[in-house]
Amino acid sequence: MTPIDYINDNFDRIKEDYKELLAIPSISTDPAYAHDVLRAANWLAAKMREIGLMPELIAMPEGRHPVVMGTWDGAGPDAKTVLIYCHYDVQPASIEDGWHTEPFTPTEVGDRIYARGATDSKIHVMANLSAVEALLANGGCPVNIKLVFEGEEESGGETISALVDQHPERMRADICVISDGSILAPEQPSIIYGLRGIVTMELHIDGPQADLHSGHWGGAVHNPAQALAEIIAKLHNDDGSVAVPGFYDDVRALDDSEREAMRANTDWLAEEYGTLVNPPTEWGEPGYSIHERTGARPTLEINGISGGYTGAGFKTVLPSHAMAKISCRLVPDQDPEDIIRKVSGYIAQLTPPTVRSRITDLDYGRPALLLAREGSAIQAAAAAYETAWGKPVIFERAGGSVPIAYDLEKISQDMALLSFSYKGGGAHSINEHALVPMLYKGIITAITFLQAIAE
Amino acid sequence: MTPIDYINDNFDRIKEDYKELLAIPSISTDPAYAHDVLRAANWLAAKMREIGLMPELIAMPEGRHPVVMGTWDGAGPDAKTVLIYCHYDVQPASIEDGWHTEPFTPTEVGDRIYARGATDSKIHVMANLSAVEALLANGGCPVNIKLVFEGEEESGGETISALVDQHPERMRADICVISDGSILAPEQPSIIYGLRGIVTMELHIDGPQADLHSGHWGGAVHNPAQALAEIIAKLHNDDGSVAVPGFYDDVRALDDSEREAMRANTDWLAEEYGTLVNPPTEWGEPGYSIHERTGARPTLEINGISGGYTGAGFKTVLPSHAMAKISCRLVPDQDPEDIIRKVSGYIAQLTPPTVRSRITDLDYGRPALLLAREGSAIQAAAAAYETAWGKPVIFERAGGSVPIAYDLEKISQDMALLSFSYKGGGAHSINEHALVPMLYKGIITAITFLQAIAE
Ligand SMILES: [Zn+2]
Ligand SMILES: [Zn+2]
Repeated sequence: MTPIDYINDNFDRIKEDYKELLAIPSISTDPAYAHDVLRAANWLAAKMREIGLMPELIAMPEGRHPVVMGTWDGAGPDAKTVLIYCHYDVQPASIEDGWHTEPFTPTEVGDRIYARGATDSKIHVMANLSAVEALLANGGCPVNIKLVFEGEEESGGETISALVDQHPERMRADICVISDGSILAPEQPSIIYGLRGIVTMELHIDGPQADLHSGHWGGAVHNPAQALAEIIAKLHNDDGSVAVPGFYDDVRALDDSEREAMRANTDWLAEEYGTLVNPPTEWGEPGYSIHERTGARPTLEINGISGGYTGAGFKTVLPSHAMAKISCRLVPDQDPEDIIRKVSGYIAQLTPPTVRSRITDLDYGRPALLLAREGSAIQAAAAAYETAWGKPVIFERAGGSVPIAYDLEKISQDMALLSFSYKGGGAHSINEHALVPMLYKGIITAITFLQAIAE
Repeated sequence: MTPIDYINDNFDRIKEDYKELLAIPSISTDPAYAHDVLRAANWLAAKMREIGLMPELIAMPEGRHPVVMGTWDGAGPDAKTVLIYCHYDVQPASIEDGWHTEPFTPTEVGDRIYARGATDSKIHVMANLSAVEALLANGGCPVNIKLVFEGEEESGGETISALVDQHPERMRADICVISDGSILAPEQPSIIYGLRGIVTMELHIDGPQADLHSGHWGGAVHNPAQALAEIIAKLHNDDGSVAVPGFYDDVRALDDSEREAMRANTDWLAEEYGTLVNPPTEWGEPGYSIHERTGARPTLEINGISGGYTGAGFKTVLPSHAMAKISCRLVPDQDPEDIIRKVSGYIAQLTPPTVRSRITDLDYGRPALLLAREGSAIQAAAAAYETAWGKPVIFERAGGSVPIAYDLEKISQDMALLSFSYKGGGAHSINEHALVPMLYKGIITAITFLQAIAE
């Protein structure tokens, strides 16, 4: 029997297993559910043993939610080792939040299965487990396997970082797969190959010793809220580009083929943009598409701003202080330290003698991550998606961060993100659900990936 | 005996009366003290009757704290009538706030009397009452008198406005005196002859439907906090002047003599500026002194600003909304409606197509008030101060508002502000106190004023 025939024969049972896992409220953010997180970990370890993997529960430091690791080295020392990362913990959920069904009573309606964790991220746990099961039950797997299921992705992820740092030998692999997140649409597979980095800081503007009466002093004292606005306004050029001198110096240019690929096939972005952004008037660095602006170009963003009296009614204060939270999204090859130096230097230079500025709460964050589209993992992933979906993938550079990628990058940069959920699946929201056909296609993708990567 | 000899003979008794009045906690902002406000009103009415005035308690609408009005028309129908306004209610106070003495146990230390209300504003009540007493006890007063003591200045002042509007005949006077506030320094008498007007509004900038993830969308969506800063930055020119087109069109120009007077003798301002403003680097409309900028030039001020996440830590949101509270201080002959129209029109014009702006919570406030320095009230006040203090007054245009002035202006524009407190007296703060020599000089000023104004 082929692994795919095996899945066809066993899919109903796999779906029932999936529901069993979904019924365990493995909420990692609430200590009251620690027992359930552990119950889910033991359920996974038992399943791993059943299909032929050697399971371990690893909690580092003691008392954290365990990583469940399942190892199989039957492909032999000359075969590649593939590490597949998923997470089995979930966000909190309660029917009072507005769910139509009990979040921990998995409910199948049409081709949907509703439950907390259905899309984020137990669909990935189940698809990869089932792919390994199908291979091991039908002549073995062509690569050695390390399934690494994290139990605290939603609550900090300390254990996995400690594992990578302190026990790199246990995590050693030739190829890493992060199976989490979502593809662009149920019928449109996609692969994220770039993630932006980030640095954050607070900008404080101090003026008079205390809030002044704006009647008594207005007109003769530089208002810190105004001065803050004047500085912020100078952080961007009129065309939307960042005005910090040298900000773009180290940015790795996009080559023509990548630009072309990023500009093709972006209906998904345009559609989402039109829904979220009002008015849907495009804004951003000139000469770049939305996909390039969000995925391949760095930004400087005001995440929060405050100063003076902002409650109900009016107090005519001339505030002594105003503050903005600022973050920069970074792209290859920008260096977080260098960017912080340039931004804070420019702000110091923009600060007029009439107020004082301070930069505090610096967080050097992380640099950007860009995986080679030509890497064997990404190429195998693309082929596998095309087999399962019957459609070529869209390559995506995403604007946010996937923290685990920065850990796993230390193990192997031959890495791919494999997602089997879709953006409408309600992750972190109410009525979270997975599409049954995506679970099926996900398993086929994972099987095909493991076969392709072995070659 | 002259009225001044009478004061010299009676000053100790007057000081004791003053302490008796200070011991009544006439806190108008807290209903728990309504009985004490009424007790103070009755104390004042009794004192008025004792010295020969006809007292009335007027509460409009019923249930508000009464105005205590004391009338004397013994100067005859051909003499002028002078209305003297003071307020006898006080701010709350508790020793727990950090007072060194019980706030309602008047305590004399050296030449200070500590008590809530000592400076704001029972010193004025006592000085004017005693001046009238001294005149009536020594040959009569050369003008008819209406003493109008308000009991809710600290809590809205409804009654006095209703009185002026609904019973103008009871308030009729040739000259109005507002006895409240403070002079520049204990040894430096001053007369405020100008007050700025005010309009207030909120500016809202709306962008995406909801807060977005700044990683996913940053760089492709105009950030409302940034857009707000960009708009605010354009409300002033680089030199500190207001950039709203037409903002200065109607501003009445200062004539050379007034400019010269305003520029002379401004050590008091420079000193306070140096204490409050840090760094003490001057800012404001070019070509004007601090006194002119705060008293005679209009402003546009950011009183508060908010948007996005401003709590502890960092949330990398791209906020959907940001807001600023804006006020303009007005000078003669700016029209509040016209200024609101110009500011909101300019903001609409500055708003880029990538966000939406809204102006809400418009308050048309009030126009500026400028009393003629040549008016008989101000001239008599200047002469009276010089007699009592032995020093010429400084004429001041103040930046804030004195709401009662806008009511009394309807009765007579021949008006003066007479203050016997000083700025360091702790009004609205802890350890409020009056200087005994200022109470004495205040009485002499009030006597001399009433004599001078009759001529
Ligand atoms: Zn999640
Ligand atoms: Zn007051």
